[in-house]
Amino acid sequence: MDASTLRVGPGFRLADADPGSTPGFATEGRRSPKKHGTAELESHVGRLAELQERLFAASTGGARDAVLLIVQGMDTAGKGGIMRHVVGAVDPQGVVITAFKKPTEEELAHDFLWRVERRVPAPGLIGVFDRSHYEDVLIGLVRSLASDEELERRYGAIVDFERGLVERGIRVVKIMLHVGRDEQKKRLGERLERPDKHWKYNPGDVDERLLWDDYQTAYQVALERTSTEEVPWNVVPADKKWFARLAVQQLLIEALESIDPQWPAADFDVEHEKERLAGS
Amino acid sequence: MDASTLRVGPGFRLADADPGSTPGFATEGRRSPKKHGTAELESHVGRLAELQERLFAASTGGARDAVLLIVQGMDTAGKGGIMRHVVGAVDPQGVVITAFKKPTEEELAHDFLWRVERRVPAPGLIGVFDRSHYEDVLIGLVRSLASDEELERRYGAIVDFERGLVERGIRVVKIMLHVGRDEQKKRLGERLERPDKHWKYNPGDVDERLLWDDYQTAYQVALERTSTEEVPWNVVPADKKWFARLAVQQLLIEALESIDPQWPAADFDVEHEKERLAGS
Repeated sequence: MDASTLRVGPGFRLADADPGSTPGFATEGRRSPKKHGTAELESHVGRLAELQERLFAASTGGARDAVLLIVQGMDTAGKGGIMRHVVGAVDPQGVVITAFKKPTEEELAHDFLWRVERRVPAPGLIGVFDRSHYEDVLIGLVRSLASDEELERRYGAIVDFERGLVERGIRVVKIMLHVGRDEQKKRLGERLERPDKHWKYNPGDVDERLLWDDYQTAYQVALERTSTEEVPWNVVPADKKWFARLAVQQLLIEALESIDPQWPAADFDVEHEKERLAGS
Repeated sequence: MDASTLRVGPGFRLADADPGSTPGFATEGRRSPKKHGTAELESHVGRLAELQERLFAASTGGARDAVLLIVQGMDTAGKGGIMRHVVGAVDPQGVVITAFKKPTEEELAHDFLWRVERRVPAPGLIGVFDRSHYEDVLIGLVRSLASDEELERRYGAIVDFERGLVERGIRVVKIMLHVGRDEQKKRLGERLERPDKHWKYNPGDVDERLLWDDYQTAYQVALERTSTEEVPWNVVPADKKWFARLAVQQLLIEALESIDPQWPAADFDVEHEKERLAGS
């Protein structure tokens, strides 16, 4: 698939993005796009695995590159599925997932970027943020947890922070999983129907849902203010889970390909070691 | 397979354990045990995934249970493969892997269990140790990094520490991947042959290999001193990778089954929430 259509550029309007669409994925002549999409996801697992291993290997030779995947979205948008089916297909030794929850007392005592900076991936690793510093401008705006002035400061601080990451060799991939309002209702309903899904449901989810339009506005502003040439946002239609997973996998692969990590050269005398091994 | 044969009991002798064997796995009448074993591994992935999800879910309802998988073994014994193929099949959001390296200055300034305690899994999680506090008695003995008296203290401290974990609700699964001397030579040789494997090779690996018998003795002592009724060791023959993976998966499944985690009951009024959702 072609993921470039997902990039947020000037003039982007979230309200015009269809959560049920599959942009960049050829559906013509395919009776079951889902089947094709799922097969494509599976077929790229090996490529992603090799790129991840190269990234890790390169870091043992001194390379500083890393990848940071930031995943945002409304409740039920499919963040967990991305973790299981896209990130979960990568060697777990090379991945560090951080799920950002409501900030602790200690975290609130620091600037909003403090807890995020501590979870930036080390060289060779793929860091994954399940929610992120963007909550501080999204909930911040919707729930008026921060003044307009403070929100302005935060948009700027985020852009600076992410530019700094890029300068340190970190490819930042920002994903908004764009689920539709009706689809969310359906998914929350499923959690209420099934006793084995009750633990995933929180009455607060409906409270947030009642602020749907406010959240869409907050996302629109955040996308406008923080989608840059260096670190663009990608809005991924998420009503079709198979499509969202395929799109995120593709964006992750492209980030790794842009690094093009190489196996490091041996820092020892290979022939000499072969002799030592033979005599051991 | 029947993993109970792998348990280290009184009178166990590591020297008598064949690294090329497949105890507990029925090979009779099977032309390709590897093919059967690999298929069995694959067929249990769903069961393991469900148990892990239940473990996590139960913790959201207040359960304190967790699992700690400790993986030890000589270089090339297959620790990385266990991480990729057994642990890697579990939802990465429910797993925390820690690879213990040579201790840092800060870590050395504390007791040897300090850095380990910090990585004990929280309720609901599966913690995985790639190497562990056992290095402090293994290398400690082989390289004389600790006095006999200090080593004695450590065996006792480990038994106490692990008993404490069990009392906190943590199932501890201890695995020694038992690779043979010849097989190690072959695997190190492969790393030297292939440029894409050079990064995995370290000249220190041969230095350690030259102390093979000392390490086997150090393992024998550690197994004797720290395999208890509550937290037994399991010695897993590791020359056949497919067997080692299947055995570790089985031990992990059994640990989770002994917990038998349950979906937590809803802590909200389901019918009321359905109404709220309908009206949102």
